[in-house]
Amino acid sequence: MGCSETDAQTAATVLVSADLRGIDSHGVARLSGYVRLWEAGRINARPNIQVVHETYSTATVDGDAGLGLVVAPFAMKIAIEKAEKVGTGWVSVRNSNHFGIAGYHALMAVQQQMIGIAMTNASALVAPTFSIERMLGTNPIAVAIPAQQQPPFVADMATTTAANGKLEILQRKEADAPLGWVQDKEGKDSTNANILKQGGALLPLGSDREHGSHKGYALGSIVDIFSAVFSGASYGPWAPPFPAYVPMPENMPGKGLGHFFGAMRIDAFRPANEFLEHMDNWISRFRQAKPAPGQEKVLIPGDPERLEEEQRLLAGIPVVDAVASDLEELAKRFKLSI
Amino acid sequence: MGCSETDAQTAATVLVSADLRGIDSHGVARLSGYVRLWEAGRINARPNIQVVHETYSTATVDGDAGLGLVVAPFAMKIAIEKAEKVGTGWVSVRNSNHFGIAGYHALMAVQQQMIGIAMTNASALVAPTFSIERMLGTNPIAVAIPAQQQPPFVADMATTTAANGKLEILQRKEADAPLGWVQDKEGKDSTNANILKQGGALLPLGSDREHGSHKGYALGSIVDIFSAVFSGASYGPWAPPFPAYVPMPENMPGKGLGHFFGAMRIDAFRPANEFLEHMDNWISRFRQAKPAPGQEKVLIPGDPERLEEEQRLLAGIPVVDAVASDLEELAKRFKLSI
Repeated sequence: MGCSETDAQTAATVLVSADLRGIDSHGVARLSGYVRLWEAGRINARPNIQVVHETYSTATVDGDAGLGLVVAPFAMKIAIEKAEKVGTGWVSVRNSNHFGIAGYHALMAVQQQMIGIAMTNASALVAPTFSIERMLGTNPIAVAIPAQQQPPFVADMATTTAANGKLEILQRKEADAPLGWVQDKEGKDSTNANILKQGGALLPLGSDREHGSHKGYALGSIVDIFSAVFSGASYGPWAPPFPAYVPMPENMPGKGLGHFFGAMRIDAFRPANEFLEHMDNWISRFRQAKPAPGQEKVLIPGDPERLEEEQRLLAGIPVVDAVASDLEELAKRFKLSI
Repeated sequence: MGCSETDAQTAATVLVSADLRGIDSHGVARLSGYVRLWEAGRINARPNIQVVHETYSTATVDGDAGLGLVVAPFAMKIAIEKAEKVGTGWVSVRNSNHFGIAGYHALMAVQQQMIGIAMTNASALVAPTFSIERMLGTNPIAVAIPAQQQPPFVADMATTTAANGKLEILQRKEADAPLGWVQDKEGKDSTNANILKQGGALLPLGSDREHGSHKGYALGSIVDIFSAVFSGASYGPWAPPFPAYVPMPENMPGKGLGHFFGAMRIDAFRPANEFLEHMDNWISRFRQAKPAPGQEKVLIPGDPERLEEEQRLLAGIPVVDAVASDLEELAKRFKLSI
């Protein structure tokens, strides 16, 4: 595509980290999607990413329509540098694109003995409580917290009941979705995993008002505001769509997608060794929580992905046929050896 | 109780703000509970609240076992001062007590043209996904964001499917709880609103694994870690209980309850007028989202509480008989005229 060697390396690392962690929907399976966005002129392969506004603890980054996979690590590095100087760093990003898995960026801070936070807005697929209009993306939040003996705590979650990737798995299997994941275009409960193609919507975490969907709606809204209203990106129903064939929304109130990153030094609140000891204690106590009958044990956020990563580092990453032929085609086209 | 005039004033303001906003479970109904904690020696009416650790953008506050209603505004003020200087301010608090509604503290920042964040851990009533052990409190998160013409966006939510106050309302009505709010001591679904008295637990936002309860569990955990592991408060199942008759947990790993506060200047990421205009645009666009059949309109987080406040400022705050006689008794005991 014309990316610099360094940027290509960074983007590849972010994509493969998703596959390693078992989040196949956000790994190399998306590569052809990024290429199509570049073909449509929506991704700039040679962006001039820069800080356009800052204070001691904050910055706003303009991604110059670059790959989110490259813009996000750039912004997270600034958050980390700010945290080194003043305890915490917070960076809002505009004019970016899909940034892969949020967890990757949050974990960059953990490598520097910091707590990392990453979030992004995304194309509108989610209806707020009481609505049938798609107003928000699945707007994920990742929070990664280092420990000492224990592996880090890594929460990485869409603010919907189910991530869109979960729905795609059901579509491939031609299986039904559980009630509470999606609604049809009239706002009725649906189990049709393809309902988004018929005007339906994903539901905010909580599924319905009685089960707290207004909280998932609020969380998704906070992600949208921090990522896009803070930075000058396009927000809510105006967020740019990922599929290159979907036309861009009219009257966009900002530029591209938005992200938000945070880094907090672990010694910003108490001595680092105390923090790490208590984090170990927190994690091991929760591991010992009494399991429900039929359950083996209580998991710590990040456990499933870490176990998957350990296995895939040994056994390799299984790639489904459709993705493999997609990659082969890209390789042929760009004259790359595989 | 011996509080200073200023502290008594602050505590009363925080309590009454909950009643005004319609969150009766966190208002004057709790006054006798605080008094009982003071009698049990768990609340210090004359605390020496102080900063014990800090960087340019962060601080840790020791509440000296004071009323959370007083400790929290003290800490939020420090977050605001830090934000004035370096763009954002973040304060973790240990050795505190129940702080009333999180939204009150978050809104303190809005009065200074800042975004406010407030969270707290609480006594363990919530079982993590796959567990039957109560490990977390209802650990609320509040985020308040100012706008210009529009009222502020105010999310204030327990990280459980339903807040404990909602369960208490059902108990008084002798009504059943919806499925998905609580489980019994064996981890089975329950509709018994009194099940917590029989070893049951509240469920994290999402209710069950299929509907994302691991996300609610992760959110509650993040609140616990930011509030208590950062600061040196007691965390997880060791969080001090609110009812004074419940014995304190053994081997507490920290002091008292913990809170976490954040303040971000609205001009930390872009010029303030741009931010406010786009926030107005965000809010009015979401108000116009197409309602589902049978629904009047889409609400913005904070709308229900603001409408309640407008009404109650005119009509007064309805106080149930039990609370009224509670207050009368306290007044008699402390020789106050009512």
